[in-house]
Amino acid sequence: MFKHLPSRKAYTLLESGPIVLLTTAGSKGHNVMTLGFHMMVQHEPALVACVIGPWNHSHTALRESGECVISVPTVDLAEQVTRIGNCSGQDVDKFATFGLHASPASTVNAPLIEECIANLECKVADTALVEPYNMFILEVSRIRVDRFRRERRLIHHAGNGAFIVDGDTVDMRQHMTKWRYLMD
Amino acid sequence: MFKHLPSRKAYTLLESGPIVLLTTAGSKGHNVMTLGFHMMVQHEPALVACVIGPWNHSHTALRESGECVISVPTVDLAEQVTRIGNCSGQDVDKFATFGLHASPASTVNAPLIEECIANLECKVADTALVEPYNMFILEVSRIRVDRFRRERRLIHHAGNGAFIVDGDTVDMRQHMTKWRYLMD
Repeated sequence: MFKHLPSRKAYTLLESGPIVLLTTAGSKGHNVMTLGFHMMVQHEPALVACVIGPWNHSHTALRESGECVISVPTVDLAEQVTRIGNCSGQDVDKFATFGLHASPASTVNAPLIEECIANLECKVADTALVEPYNMFILEVSRIRVDRFRRERRLIHHAGNGAFIVDGDTVDMRQHMTKWRYLMD
Repeated sequence: MFKHLPSRKAYTLLESGPIVLLTTAGSKGHNVMTLGFHMMVQHEPALVACVIGPWNHSHTALRESGECVISVPTVDLAEQVTRIGNCSGQDVDKFATFGLHASPASTVNAPLIEECIANLECKVADTALVEPYNMFILEVSRIRVDRFRRERRLIHHAGNGAFIVDGDTVDMRQHMTKWRYLMD
């Protein structure tokens, strides 16, 4: 049912800019937030940057635990994703409220989300940019992808609660002369 | 033909993770590169982070000039975008080779690209992260959007020259209770 990708394949999931969920394990249990401010920083080791302000309940858990999971939702989860991004883990048990199922990760204490098509386990690699920009540098330690999920279209936040859904794919592989070494 | 958005609306163009072009003006003329490693950092003033390695000809121009333009292409430009990302401005005049038309920006010396649906003029706001991560923090100073362009679908790089094209839009505005202040 699941396959594992090498961490260096994180960019195939994240570079296209999907809205993602981010889970943490804190002293008060699991939490999950919605995240649109993230990018790839490096292919290998796979580094991801994300901006999480101190007004987010997850900020503290991420600083204290140094671990999280980036979970990639598909379009059938758009309402949950939006509502998760509009309430706080300080007030609500978001897993229970939004019907998400947590399952144990392998390399971190933060949970995977069963409903998501992909889960990337991450460890905080650098907190030096938290002070100026609320930016965490994460290293991806393990990737699990749901192979048999029917709905596979990711969503991209265009602002104000409008999400663009994945449409067609355009294949420009024949023009990837310089970056061929990344393929396999 | 064009409209100008306030800089604080940059996230409506960039948060959804489109592949973008980035232009610079250097001592040897204009250059353009393809960029997938970028994210929003802050809504207002609008800050954008991007990762541009020193192996890119644009890296030096960006450091020296402190200015660039982020140009947002649509799906009809997918082949040019890919080919621009697979050659170097050191060897090729990319504007001429790929039939792009440069036009003057208002707040920076780097050029706009006429063929792109949106052009965001940017000034480098912080180079402290260039050393560890090749990361530039940019502040958006002006946004021009082509109002009457027919093809409006952006493309998202899913790796290895495969691009996902914008599909349907899902409207979750009614659930944006917390972030309503961003809307107008």
